[in-house]
Amino acid sequence: MQNFTLHNPTRILFGQGRIADISQEIPAGARILITYGGGSVVKTGTLNEVKAALKDYTVFEFAGIEPNPTYETLMQAVELARREQIDFLLAVGGGSVIDGTKFIVAAIPFAGEPWDILAKHAEIKSTIPFGSVLTLPATGSEMNSGAVVTRRASNDKLVFASPLVYPLFSVLDPTKTYTLPTRQVANGVVDAFVHITEQYLTYPADAKVQDRFAEGLLLTLIEEGPRALQEPENYAVRSNLMWTATLALNGLIGAGVPQDWATHMLGHELTALHGLDHAQTLAVLLPAMLQVRREEKREKLLQYADRVWGLREGDQDVRIGQAIKYTRQFFESMQVSTRLSDYGIGSDAIPALVAQLQRHGMTALGEHQNFDIARSQQVYELAV
Amino acid sequence: MQNFTLHNPTRILFGQGRIADISQEIPAGARILITYGGGSVVKTGTLNEVKAALKDYTVFEFAGIEPNPTYETLMQAVELARREQIDFLLAVGGGSVIDGTKFIVAAIPFAGEPWDILAKHAEIKSTIPFGSVLTLPATGSEMNSGAVVTRRASNDKLVFASPLVYPLFSVLDPTKTYTLPTRQVANGVVDAFVHITEQYLTYPADAKVQDRFAEGLLLTLIEEGPRALQEPENYAVRSNLMWTATLALNGLIGAGVPQDWATHMLGHELTALHGLDHAQTLAVLLPAMLQVRREEKREKLLQYADRVWGLREGDQDVRIGQAIKYTRQFFESMQVSTRLSDYGIGSDAIPALVAQLQRHGMTALGEHQNFDIARSQQVYELAV
Repeated sequence: MQNFTLHNPTRILFGQGRIADISQEIPAGARILITYGGGSVVKTGTLNEVKAALKDYTVFEFAGIEPNPTYETLMQAVELARREQIDFLLAVGGGSVIDGTKFIVAAIPFAGEPWDILAKHAEIKSTIPFGSVLTLPATGSEMNSGAVVTRRASNDKLVFASPLVYPLFSVLDPTKTYTLPTRQVANGVVDAFVHITEQYLTYPADAKVQDRFAEGLLLTLIEEGPRALQEPENYAVRSNLMWTATLALNGLIGAGVPQDWATHMLGHELTALHGLDHAQTLAVLLPAMLQVRREEKREKLLQYADRVWGLREGDQDVRIGQAIKYTRQFFESMQVSTRLSDYGIGSDAIPALVAQLQRHGMTALGEHQNFDIARSQQVYELAV
Repeated sequence: MQNFTLHNPTRILFGQGRIADISQEIPAGARILITYGGGSVVKTGTLNEVKAALKDYTVFEFAGIEPNPTYETLMQAVELARREQIDFLLAVGGGSVIDGTKFIVAAIPFAGEPWDILAKHAEIKSTIPFGSVLTLPATGSEMNSGAVVTRRASNDKLVFASPLVYPLFSVLDPTKTYTLPTRQVANGVVDAFVHITEQYLTYPADAKVQDRFAEGLLLTLIEEGPRALQEPENYAVRSNLMWTATLALNGLIGAGVPQDWATHMLGHELTALHGLDHAQTLAVLLPAMLQVRREEKREKLLQYADRVWGLREGDQDVRIGQAIKYTRQFFESMQVSTRLSDYGIGSDAIPALVAQLQRHGMTALGEHQNFDIARSQQVYELAV
């Protein structure tokens, strides 16, 4: 096991009806800015439920944080918050709304150009406290300290992280996910799945607990993902998916082990240039990535084949191939297509994708920091 | 899954050499009281390593916190801390030292009789901050908010808990466990094992992640426990055991599921009246407890037989019996005996044990709060 530091201060309020408890977590007299996205939280009544729980506070709203939240939009919220002397924020939505709110709470008190937080990794010295009410299990943003923000002007997806942007609390009420469109549920399952493989399918590090936790989360997604599509109001299924997605990227399974993240980096360019959903990029790229890197990931792929897919007999290479095939079939069973061509993207798109990777300095990726542009190109080619 | 709130603010510093990092976690100028036990941390050099890391602070020491720490001893530390205006404590040791230190940090600023914290569950309104350097993986006290303190006068083991007694940080350096006596290593493994079963072997609650995490921890103990006895300086083995014992009782696997704890309650009386090590009591009682309660725990026992012991074929009752037998054999393989008679305790001791349970109000135990004195007596009888 590698040395690690683990500290996760977010308080989880899990279960049906927990929105009613949020006022216990927010200082009396706070001026609260509720942030949300395209309005589904208005339609479903979740926003009203939140506002009812906050009836004793002064509450403002900022709507319109888009999927892949943009710097341009978020800076409007920063201006509103500064103008209205907001001292608490509450993100109501999925990973994009929470990621965007993380940027907002860092930018409000930032002395200087907030853009530098993203472009120059400028140090964040203070933030406005915030909580979240999660409506879409997928990214784990509700219990971690990272965020991805897109600059519309240049179509760059930029990452920042700070221990000061953990949510103070997050409400995880599984019933709030009942009305999600199939595509969002499916994307969330695929996203969580690949978050886990980025921290698990690397090389052995004598980390038995982290491995078994990762395998437990993968097995849960495989069992519950398809059921979530068939039985949208099955509370047990939605509970298991929601908690799994949070644990997939809250620091726990990645503590003390090598991490990859190459699939994510190659995926970001697909979203930037072709507008694919984040999870679609992962479903397309992971099978190809594992195929191209099957030698360096051999031992963990065999463990994955055994413990996640029950493949224990016969030739090692056959087992690995079968595990990759089952992974692809699982994504397809979630109704997420796994070939670039399914999204109308052909080989002719690859040079531009590779050029983007080069421009972003993505030339030494993966758990060995040696996954180069030539091999990234191979992955894109295999993914067509 | 049941509703739950989960908030664990302890920062884990895991790995070889991490004691050197503790000064980054303690405010400059703090007056620190180091607490420890019988002196093994002096012999092993761990205390010196800690003091070297704290060379820029004013440091006091309090030695002699015993296994099953007593109120009488701990109050001496409270007096010292008050007299010397201590503003940070550092527990260096195992669960007893950390539990004891939790009581000390709560008692120092307590307005009133500190005994009430234990006897009357008096509310703890503030505490002195503290950290820990763990030398014995077993109890999970390094990352939870509970403690057990014994009153020597009456031989009562009393429990208290407060969100204010989470350690600010805990150092988990697996090399610090290399010199532990076999008995302590073995006890730690058994203790962690039963912490897990208390939260896992109850009834199904549609909590797939919690179940799989519990199973992953049990499997790790089963694999690594015996190896730890054979290869005391195997870093990977000690790392896995140390991290497992922490995760066994830090709130994670118990969130959203029913919990039992009857084995612990019956065990406390064995320690109080006969001086058995805590883990010895658990090794004796768990097999008998599972036998007596095999009907109410049937579904989870079958799952345990399948996923932890690989028992999938044949008659259900045979599988359950086999799983209980393997559990006993595992404890024995850790050199912890599993019959009361192995410790020289016969049936004649049972009336007094039952009377203690009655006196402590332990008349409705377990996940259904209906495990009564008559059935507790059955467990003691079966354990002879």
